[in-house]
Amino acid sequence: MNTMEAITARTSYRGTYQSTKVLKEHLKQIVKAGLAAPSGCNKQTVSLIAVDDEELLNKLHSVIQPPIGETAPAMICVLTRKIIAYRDKCYHVQDYAAAIENMLLAIVELGYQSCWIEGHITDEDHIGDQMAKILDVPEEYDLVAFLPVGIAEEECKSTKKLPFEQRAWFNGFRKDF
Amino acid sequence: MNTMEAITARTSYRGTYQSTKVLKEHLKQIVKAGLAAPSGCNKQTVSLIAVDDEELLNKLHSVIQPPIGETAPAMICVLTRKIIAYRDKCYHVQDYAAAIENMLLAIVELGYQSCWIEGHITDEDHIGDQMAKILDVPEEYDLVAFLPVGIAEEECKSTKKLPFEQRAWFNGFRKDF
Repeated sequence: MNTMEAITARTSYRGTYQSTKVLKEHLKQIVKAGLAAPSGCNKQTVSLIAVDDEELLNKLHSVIQPPIGETAPAMICVLTRKIIAYRDKCYHVQDYAAAIENMLLAIVELGYQSCWIEGHITDEDHIGDQMAKILDVPEEYDLVAFLPVGIAEEECKSTKKLPFEQRAWFNGFRKDF
Repeated sequence: MNTMEAITARTSYRGTYQSTKVLKEHLKQIVKAGLAAPSGCNKQTVSLIAVDDEELLNKLHSVIQPPIGETAPAMICVLTRKIIAYRDKCYHVQDYAAAIENMLLAIVELGYQSCWIEGHITDEDHIGDQMAKILDVPEEYDLVAFLPVGIAEEECKSTKKLPFEQRAWFNGFRKDF
């Protein structure tokens, strides 16, 4: 699968997963893809924890309410540190978003599916903080998102999007390609 | 080139570019890759303008001081709108970061190089706003980043990064893979 194919094939998969384990070597490749993303002023604000231990997964999913991705045999937890790049500028959101996108593409290339879960765990109920505690993550890190990883059991459906010409232009605003 | 290869091959290229034009079809593919990225609650906050018109490029680069990417025969300008996803939550930064990462990978796969230029144009001198004016972009959009696109004339050097084991762990914080 080339890059354009992976980019096109990626969907936000919200169905159930097969119980087949994700190879540890694959989890390592996915995480490596995440860390290979660029970061503002190379501050490398992103850290990652891959989880496939069943007991640990159960503990993590016990705090993720309402449940999402709970049938996946693995997950990647995304940690960030608000390291200043220069003056008062901090690019930690851009950094982890780029890392997540790389991982989503690597996941698809390796034959798995996933979904970027962020708002669900960073809302007022602070699920991400509870997950961080379970993983013994110190306070200087924020757990801001997680990616379930596994083989899809259901069909992957693409999200409906606005037509190309409403979002992409050539040599000026609203000038068609 | 498969996805993992593109992810690994991508660098933040700050050298000079060859004058060879970027195929319009390639610019379209790059922009499509950007728009294929996920967005929080599918709000599709990102819009893109590809520029290869020489006169327009010169105008844009005349406000980008100090110069960067000025020898590239094309650029992609990244626009964002702060559309609320739900309650007070807005994921526009995550959205454009994911779109940019997709485009950087597509650029590498197509044989070109680029660099994510954001801080340089969103600083106190508001270069992005000046670029937006040149492109007739209305005020509801912010021009937050641009990507020069072209064939590299110099060697692409990878950024030095922290060792894997300082940023990636398995089944718990600081537990080695």
